[in-house]
Amino acid sequence: MIRTTDEFKTLVEEIQAQPNYKNPIAFGICRIDASQLDNEKVLQATYPVINWNENFGSAAIFIAALKSCGIEVDNTQSEVSVNITFDFVKNAIDSFNPYLAEAVGDAHRNVQVIIQLFQLLLDDGMKEGEFRVVFLFEDAACVSVEATYLKLYALSQAKAELRTLNLNGAFGALPNVAWHGNTPIDLDYLRINEIELKLRNEYPEIDFVDKFPRFLQHIIPADNTRILETAKVRFGAQLHAGTTVMPGASYINFNAGTTGSVMVEGRISSSAIVGAGSDVGGGASILGVLSGTDGNPISVGQNTLLGANSTCGIPLGDACIIDAGLAVLEGTKLSISTDQLEKINIANPEANLTGDTFKGKELSSLNGLHFRQDSISGKMIVLRSTREIKLNADLH
Amino acid sequence: MIRTTDEFKTLVEEIQAQPNYKNPIAFGICRIDASQLDNEKVLQATYPVINWNENFGSAAIFIAALKSCGIEVDNTQSEVSVNITFDFVKNAIDSFNPYLAEAVGDAHRNVQVIIQLFQLLLDDGMKEGEFRVVFLFEDAACVSVEATYLKLYALSQAKAELRTLNLNGAFGALPNVAWHGNTPIDLDYLRINEIELKLRNEYPEIDFVDKFPRFLQHIIPADNTRILETAKVRFGAQLHAGTTVMPGASYINFNAGTTGSVMVEGRISSSAIVGAGSDVGGGASILGVLSGTDGNPISVGQNTLLGANSTCGIPLGDACIIDAGLAVLEGTKLSISTDQLEKINIANPEANLTGDTFKGKELSSLNGLHFRQDSISGKMIVLRSTREIKLNADLH
Amino acid sequence: MIRTTDEFKTLVEEIQAQPNYKNPIAFGICRIDASQLDNEKVLQATYPVINWNENFGSAAIFIAALKSCGIEVDNTQSEVSVNITFDFVKNAIDSFNPYLAEAVGDAHRNVQVIIQLFQLLLDDGMKEGEFRVVFLFEDAACVSVEATYLKLYALSQAKAELRTLNLNGAFGALPNVAWHGNTPIDLDYLRINEIELKLRNEYPEIDFVDKFPRFLQHIIPADNTRILETAKVRFGAQLHAGTTVMPGASYINFNAGTTGSVMVEGRISSSAIVGAGSDVGGGASILGVLSGTDGNPISVGQNTLLGANSTCGIPLGDACIIDAGLAVLEGTKLSISTDQLEKINIANPEANLTGDTFKGKELSSLNGLHFRQDSISGKMIVLRSTREIKLNADLH
Repeated sequence: MIRTTDEFKTLVEEIQAQPNYKNPIAFGICRIDASQLDNEKVLQATYPVINWNENFGSAAIFIAALKSCGIEVDNTQSEVSVNITFDFVKNAIDSFNPYLAEAVGDAHRNVQVIIQLFQLLLDDGMKEGEFRVVFLFEDAACVSVEATYLKLYALSQAKAELRTLNLNGAFGALPNVAWHGNTPIDLDYLRINEIELKLRNEYPEIDFVDKFPRFLQHIIPADNTRILETAKVRFGAQLHAGTTVMPGASYINFNAGTTGSVMVEGRISSSAIVGAGSDVGGGASILGVLSGTDGNPISVGQNTLLGANSTCGIPLGDACIIDAGLAVLEGTKLSISTDQLEKINIANPEANLTGDTFKGKELSSLNGLHFRQDSISGKMIVLRSTREIKLNADLH
Repeated sequence: MIRTTDEFKTLVEEIQAQPNYKNPIAFGICRIDASQLDNEKVLQATYPVINWNENFGSAAIFIAALKSCGIEVDNTQSEVSVNITFDFVKNAIDSFNPYLAEAVGDAHRNVQVIIQLFQLLLDDGMKEGEFRVVFLFEDAACVSVEATYLKLYALSQAKAELRTLNLNGAFGALPNVAWHGNTPIDLDYLRINEIELKLRNEYPEIDFVDKFPRFLQHIIPADNTRILETAKVRFGAQLHAGTTVMPGASYINFNAGTTGSVMVEGRISSSAIVGAGSDVGGGASILGVLSGTDGNPISVGQNTLLGANSTCGIPLGDACIIDAGLAVLEGTKLSISTDQLEKINIANPEANLTGDTFKGKELSSLNGLHFRQDSISGKMIVLRSTREIKLNADLH
Repeated sequence: MIRTTDEFKTLVEEIQAQPNYKNPIAFGICRIDASQLDNEKVLQATYPVINWNENFGSAAIFIAALKSCGIEVDNTQSEVSVNITFDFVKNAIDSFNPYLAEAVGDAHRNVQVIIQLFQLLLDDGMKEGEFRVVFLFEDAACVSVEATYLKLYALSQAKAELRTLNLNGAFGALPNVAWHGNTPIDLDYLRINEIELKLRNEYPEIDFVDKFPRFLQHIIPADNTRILETAKVRFGAQLHAGTTVMPGASYINFNAGTTGSVMVEGRISSSAIVGAGSDVGGGASILGVLSGTDGNPISVGQNTLLGANSTCGIPLGDACIIDAGLAVLEGTKLSISTDQLEKINIANPEANLTGDTFKGKELSSLNGLHFRQDSISGKMIVLRSTREIKLNADLH
């Protein structure tokens, strides 16, 4: 048993000094929901705490605890997931001993996990495979459910920036399941038991059928964040504090979200990002990489308004407006008058636009654009918006 | 104990004749959901019955019952909320004695509340602060959760007309909470207990995170009203009998709604009102005072059609049509031919429109307009709609 | 007791040979949810198994079992629904005797129902009217809840093609109820018990109020079908395997759906059908027969794209595109240049289009159309789409 924090630090250093030792880029302990039909088939991984390029001491303790149980963590793999045993927990709690008393609130969250697990195992015993410790040693394509969830946690807890993680393979790694509240149900379990469940009035209420869970099943939002309907935000989305997601036509996919307070009444498709003070109007669509944009992810700047039922198919800068109902796509031809062009060039010193007609793509990421359809001529035009480019004023 | 209805009336008159006595504009008894962390922090108030400019006798009995418990209701405050004790209930039930037997169905609903409360307290005892009696003496800005809910009930039960109540301060009064079914959960409770709840598989299913509950948590709709998804109607909305709310892109915010049978497949934003026989098409947006209309709330008349994915930014009269996909905003320039203008003027005798181009705002609230984009010229035009102006024919 | 499969077959033939015997077009055994206030008022019928023009032997056994209980099934009625008794189950299980052992998985599903029912009745006894056997002898207008559900099951399980069943009377047959998970609640029950339920904190969470349940309450989707929010698909919709329904602005009504893998982010209104490989973009609307199309149901072909927030008011062939935000209605005037017209005629050999302007209706069901608004002139144009007409290439 480790008795002092100095002893703890020495222990960690010894572990880390072992040949070929490598700090994981991420790790955590999760509870597994397995298939009702097959205890080996993982349907969901719930992490009370994740670590992302941090807390390497705890990682070392976990790796050493596994070793003491006879399990060698192979850090040449991109991801490693190991069933937890009581001995593992006991070994870790002995190592964490100097921190047990002060592990409360935001302090020593990994230690808190071990303490709770210890208590839980004493209370209830454990089911083989219910708890696992998972390590990522490389941000490679997703293989296991546990590692995929670890990355989705990192995105949704803003420990990793949107679009920075390798999510290839996620759709393959995650099984498609029926969700009853937070519980994933194997579709085959329903099929096999349909007759009995229906006749006995025990057929479960199914909230949705998907590979991904919902954001609110795993994440506690900030006090000033509002999500008026859980279905509207997929796990793996990132919502900055102060974001409001309305229940009308809105949706925020995984690996997409907001980087400031944003009003969301429309769709932020996969890989799209919206900046502080912007308003995604009712039914507005920001196209995602999975469809509509040839794989160029769309960022929308700050204080930009996407009008109701508008469609945004190009990246936008700050303080832009797309009028209600308009679609601005990469190929949309947009007319700009000479005087408006001058103002737009002033607002965007590096743009140096010349001409009178532009494709949407050519106006990507500029600030202060107001997209409008002239209702007399039917022409799609761009004006210098009368919005202030508030937050980034010092740039211009 | 009061023995006859005459004795009851005399008692009420005596209470009301006391110096400085004032009838409340609204009152009711509610059950409180408090924070899981702080019994003093109110998260929700559930009223089985509310009274709005009515049943002043019951109010007098409640005020007198409080007085007999040593509590003086300060009617110079805009709102008063007091914890209920067993003595209060006992005192009230003694006063209501002549009505106890006949308090069933729609009769004597406040008496029914007291009877049920009496029985419940006998069965289960009570938790300090679980039940409160709340009075509004003035329609001032909202301060307490209880008083805010009282106003939202008045709107959703159509005891007060939309837009007639002072809802300032509502966002400040209501805490942002996680909702598990009808139960509000303090976000800090989830934070503090996240590790234990997740490891023990007891993390609650969170349906949404918002300050407001949903309409169906508190209101029983009419037999011919349909709400195909509870998330689509916020508490504080008002739905006239016969309204149908579809689950696609629709949403009805608080202090907004319908005044007749309406098909709702789009968004009725805060403060917007739609009349009988109208159809808010799939994805259509009616702009609200919180964004898009400079604070002029939008009313849509009767038998009006907002086409799929249209946006309505001006008030409309009866029998109008906005074609699918169009946005009609205050500044939209709209062309009207001479012959159509004549027909429009006939349908709107007080309009006296002259000219050939109008801003959307100038056509506010007129009847029989058909907004269309000429698909050859791209011009936005207005025609006299071929719809009948059915319900208000006698006006024209 | 029947001892061999030969005896069984003989029995069935004897039953079927009786005078005026008629095979039902559909039948099944269902569990009934009755009103909380009136055991005779049916709110929902849950079928573990339905039969649609199949398994006539089981039907014969059921009809004979009823007869042995003294109940004559009147096959001159379009629908017959009879309460099940223990004697009925006992009689049926005796007839099914040779199949009891092999009734597992996909084999002998009706026998499985009887076995489970037998066990359930032994375990728990039964409530009068809880289980019913239902026959359809003719596809006439819907009368009972049970028969209406039988038809909705047939559609949602793809045992009947969309638009082929007589659903007249369905809205009249189904009561409007409050749904708490899979449980329908009589609105009057809530009204009568509102005060007690609210004060005792037992008021049920109401998920929606509608005549129809949701698809996922009764149907188990294919492994590669995803429905990200249960509210988005009404019971009676048909989803081909591989269809994905997103939770933003989408909705699929009853008697509507997909005939192949389709991405659904918009609305498929009642009676609309979408073909394999097509993409109903975010917020796109396909108009339904209940509004907008004069009763001509819309089919959308294969590999067709309805852009975000577009509105489709005409039938479309394969490999079409409606650009984001556009509305193509029956009366929309569409311009086609000479060279594009030639290409469109080649892609549609039977069309023989001549001229330069067409109404939307005139272009119904053609392949390879690309609907666009020229953003310089505002004109609505149609081009030959550059999409491959993938799946049906051999037709052209």
